[in-house]
Amino acid sequence: MPSVELIAVGTEILLGQLVDTNTAFIAARLAAAGIDVHATQAVGDNRDRIAAAIRSALSRAEGVVTTGGLGPTIDDLTKEAVCDALGLGAELHEPALAHMEAVFAAHGRPMRPNNRKQAELPEGSRALDNPNGTAPGFIAFTAGQFVACMPGVPREMKPMLEGQVVPFLRERFDARERIYTRVLHTIGIGESEIDHRIDDLFRRSENPKVAVLAHDFRADVKITAKAASEADAEAMIAPLQDDIERRLLGHVFGRDDATPASAILAQLRDRGRTLAVAESFTGGLVSAALTSVPGASLSFRGGVVAYDNAVKISQLGVAAQTLAAAGAVSEEAAREMARGARERLGADAGLATTGIAGPDGATPEKPVGLVWIALDDGEARAHRLQLRGDREAIQRRGTTAALGILWRHLNDSRR
Amino acid sequence: MPSVELIAVGTEILLGQLVDTNTAFIAARLAAAGIDVHATQAVGDNRDRIAAAIRSALSRAEGVVTTGGLGPTIDDLTKEAVCDALGLGAELHEPALAHMEAVFAAHGRPMRPNNRKQAELPEGSRALDNPNGTAPGFIAFTAGQFVACMPGVPREMKPMLEGQVVPFLRERFDARERIYTRVLHTIGIGESEIDHRIDDLFRRSENPKVAVLAHDFRADVKITAKAASEADAEAMIAPLQDDIERRLLGHVFGRDDATPASAILAQLRDRGRTLAVAESFTGGLVSAALTSVPGASLSFRGGVVAYDNAVKISQLGVAAQTLAAAGAVSEEAAREMARGARERLGADAGLATTGIAGPDGATPEKPVGLVWIALDDGEARAHRLQLRGDREAIQRRGTTAALGILWRHLNDSRR
Repeated sequence: MPSVELIAVGTEILLGQLVDTNTAFIAARLAAAGIDVHATQAVGDNRDRIAAAIRSALSRAEGVVTTGGLGPTIDDLTKEAVCDALGLGAELHEPALAHMEAVFAAHGRPMRPNNRKQAELPEGSRALDNPNGTAPGFIAFTAGQFVACMPGVPREMKPMLEGQVVPFLRERFDARERIYTRVLHTIGIGESEIDHRIDDLFRRSENPKVAVLAHDFRADVKITAKAASEADAEAMIAPLQDDIERRLLGHVFGRDDATPASAILAQLRDRGRTLAVAESFTGGLVSAALTSVPGASLSFRGGVVAYDNAVKISQLGVAAQTLAAAGAVSEEAAREMARGARERLGADAGLATTGIAGPDGATPEKPVGLVWIALDDGEARAHRLQLRGDREAIQRRGTTAALGILWRHLNDSRR
Repeated sequence: MPSVELIAVGTEILLGQLVDTNTAFIAARLAAAGIDVHATQAVGDNRDRIAAAIRSALSRAEGVVTTGGLGPTIDDLTKEAVCDALGLGAELHEPALAHMEAVFAAHGRPMRPNNRKQAELPEGSRALDNPNGTAPGFIAFTAGQFVACMPGVPREMKPMLEGQVVPFLRERFDARERIYTRVLHTIGIGESEIDHRIDDLFRRSENPKVAVLAHDFRADVKITAKAASEADAEAMIAPLQDDIERRLLGHVFGRDDATPASAILAQLRDRGRTLAVAESFTGGLVSAALTSVPGASLSFRGGVVAYDNAVKISQLGVAAQTLAAAGAVSEEAAREMARGARERLGADAGLATTGIAGPDGATPEKPVGLVWIALDDGEARAHRLQLRGDREAIQRRGTTAALGILWRHLNDSRR
């Protein structure tokens, strides 16, 4: 079976300064496309070593896919190493140069000689467009083999991989079957409870295959089918998906690209309702999650990050006496914040978070991780949680928990 | 210079189902310990390929460190591959067997033959204790070279690395020196402009070594020194650091663990000043960045996520006429939002963002990516930016840009 090897270039990888996530991303996409990855390597910014890694990979696999080392600095040596490994010269690629000149002109930045170098490619290469950056990628060829080189910046690499490298590889390898995936996102149910409910499906699954992926504070169920077409895959996946969704009723908030925020906004939009948010310890993360969804403005009116007590009073109408008597991290404060968000921002529902993210601010009665989340849509309800982890984890988990509580409320009240 | 190579074993890595974080963790620890990592590889659970990877690594480096493939299943083949690669037999390691029997007895689980296999090590090996699991690690030896094998489970691997493998390597390589790192974080200056300004330092740097690391919308300069003590390293780094900070004056916002938000909060705290934020298209990300810093509450009073125009009017006092005449994405609206945040939330300064994150909402005059950022500390100023990328990138870059503008203002007004 034809296969490729992956090479990540960058001394910072060998120094452990950078976790190479590109390799896993590429490997997953190639697996989905039915292309076998034989092995992966990482090498430093050293021309001879990059060339040796390429030669060694080509001794085992039909092709090589590299990331990194295409930038404008003298440490960027992948192109030179490809020329060395394949015995090719470099030549100026006019369309790539024109693209770079246009990008620099649009930003009013001067183009320096080291940028110009980026438009030179190994002779006979096919250029790979880079709409998100200046440096083009390329595929260089030698007798029966190839080396495809992409930038290391993930947001430049990913569209180049999807749009140009994967199609090239599928054609080259005549890949007929691919892997189709359906992800069911759950919230408010633990990994081991999911495991318990679908254990039998899990055990007998082969193709399609079922797996549970645990994330921070939530879990996904992943169904993968190897099939020759999307229709074939869908026919294999659908019955299994129905069965799993029935067993996890009230917890599956969406499929594939859905997020808790997108599922909430879809529910609100369908029902013509609006939301406002009041955040203390989550500091803007709940609002940010909601506004990350395109079209959020249809249902999300806005939020108040009420970090200071005076802001809770002035912007949300929380009673000074509530803060004095029960404290800012209390059921009462959370309820008043939710009501204040709803009323002051003119929304149908208000969602509020208050808690102790740490490391400071804890008392014997109110430890780090104590969190109150309240929801007010005319009627108010509040949930108390005790979250674990450092400041960042508590903020992140509190955000997921708040979105989960809201989604489950919207979903329950719909049925 | 003596060096090692790292090999991660596991088919799930090649399928992209697992991001291999072990390699970066080990590489960072070895770098700090003054041990050079020549390259890294990942291979699947295949005996021949693992053995080939080990042989290939030993052709370039003095030793190999592997993770994964030491478990009890038929897919765990690292030990067999080490025996193949080094031409060694396996022998039962009595202390390892005793440890495993104790672990199984403690958990009341029966020990199966495939567990017993885990106590067999390549002949002449040194066993590595595994206090967090059953499978021991080991270091196998051959003429002048070695292969150190650890489990793939991070919680088992990490203490084994720190407590046993790193000490072994430091002694073996007689490593007296270690690597010390200083990172200078910049904002408001591009990677190629930095490169241009410090190109000569970059070119002649060896020890200490200078590198530029590009992040999304900002860049870091990293200085690494190999030295026998922290004091020696500091003496090597300090003059270079001073020189670079001079050349990048007004752009270096902090060192090492600093973030734009932590640098801003430190400036505010030192001067006893407070900040409030008004966000439109960044949707809470500016507030979230600030509140991610412990102790943010000393200087950050809060924010308003004014997504809806009605919220801009009611919560921030933006004039309805401004929104009607100039629009929500305008210099005037940004200035009024910044003033509103300052006044309504009772802060010394207000920072505001308004822009078009897309994909919807653009007009011919106001394209996706058009952004206004305003700052009001009694006196108001506004900056217009045209950002690139998708919705998420524009929101993220807008956040970095807003923090950069605020930091540069605080820094300028200090001088």
